[in-house]
Amino acid sequence: MRQFLVVAHDAPASADFPLDALASEAGRMDLLARALNAALLQSHGIREDTRVHLVIDGVTVSVDGATVRNLHPDERSIAALLRSALDSRDDAIGHQPAEPSPGVAVYRMDLEATLDRLAREGPIVQLHEGGAPAVEVSVPEDPVFVLSDHRNFTDEEVDLIAERADARVRLGPRPLHADHAISVAHNWLDTDGYTQY
Amino acid sequence: MRQFLVVAHDAPASADFPLDALASEAGRMDLLARALNAALLQSHGIREDTRVHLVIDGVTVSVDGATVRNLHPDERSIAALLRSALDSRDDAIGHQPAEPSPGVAVYRMDLEATLDRLAREGPIVQLHEGGAPAVEVSVPEDPVFVLSDHRNFTDEEVDLIAERADARVRLGPRPLHADHAISVAHNWLDTDGYTQY
Repeated sequence: MRQFLVVAHDAPASADFPLDALASEAGRMDLLARALNAALLQSHGIREDTRVHLVIDGVTVSVDGATVRNLHPDERSIAALLRSALDSRDDAIGHQPAEPSPGVAVYRMDLEATLDRLAREGPIVQLHEGGAPAVEVSVPEDPVFVLSDHRNFTDEEVDLIAERADARVRLGPRPLHADHAISVAHNWLDTDGYTQY
Repeated sequence: MRQFLVVAHDAPASADFPLDALASEAGRMDLLARALNAALLQSHGIREDTRVHLVIDGVTVSVDGATVRNLHPDERSIAALLRSALDSRDDAIGHQPAEPSPGVAVYRMDLEATLDRLAREGPIVQLHEGGAPAVEVSVPEDPVFVLSDHRNFTDEEVDLIAERADARVRLGPRPLHADHAISVAHNWLDTDGYTQY
């Protein structure tokens, strides 16, 4: 199992956003859609061994590659899926998620609660420019990668992640967009640390 | 310099497509937009050392990271740029491109003509499941990577590329979408073959 946790900073936990202006009027829902695409899609198929979690304004939308249906790659389709998910948030009670469609769960959990939930399932791996070069790190089993959107993590988020991180990994010398970093992290795992092709 | 050549199979060389239905009514312009994003964008900046070329129905749209302006990451914005580019195609005469906006050139060149143009600028590298593992290949200087969209290359395209390819490289064991493959290829180069972080 591979998991990717992406923290949004501008997106509202609301279904009230236009699909025609994802980058300008939806808190960068375009970016979250691309991150979900990079995490779950491969050529002519879905990465069934992968889950992605988007922390959006106190809510976490989790999508499971093993069970999600009708996942198309374009931003608009994925944003529509996220909009439906956010529209169901009132059905999430306590730590019981709403399940608006197959493979999609919406939790009333913020970053801290979601980190604690996922830390029970595998090591938390922070993608960080100060981390160890990926090529020098043993490929983790069942990793939970933590990434930010176009904003840096806040100081509070940095602390929450640092307290729980089992590893800090650097994917390369250039700063990458979240979705590109996810593609690179997948490749690191796909090749078992650049050894299997 | 790095260059990425992406061959579209369903997109029309026409500006007559809706920005609201890129995946369904625009010949998968969404995919081309993501490929352009992956090729030219990094976190908070543009890859100025990179050019991307989209072969669309007998026309090639080339975008130069060094000079392009106002490049946003979302599919809709990039598709609007491509639509403006395709709208200028009648201004391309012979092998002189139209230049509808800074950093964007539109050539009346098909795959063969564009391959021949780019082969003068660097080695043609085919990303191919039968190629040599990237980790075992010397990182090429000034590579021109050739990729397809969601369709396989046609037999004719396979021959055109094979006749000109200087290397065939395998990025990993899983088949990747074009945009994800571009992110992985960039990482291979960014790290100088997984040695520099």
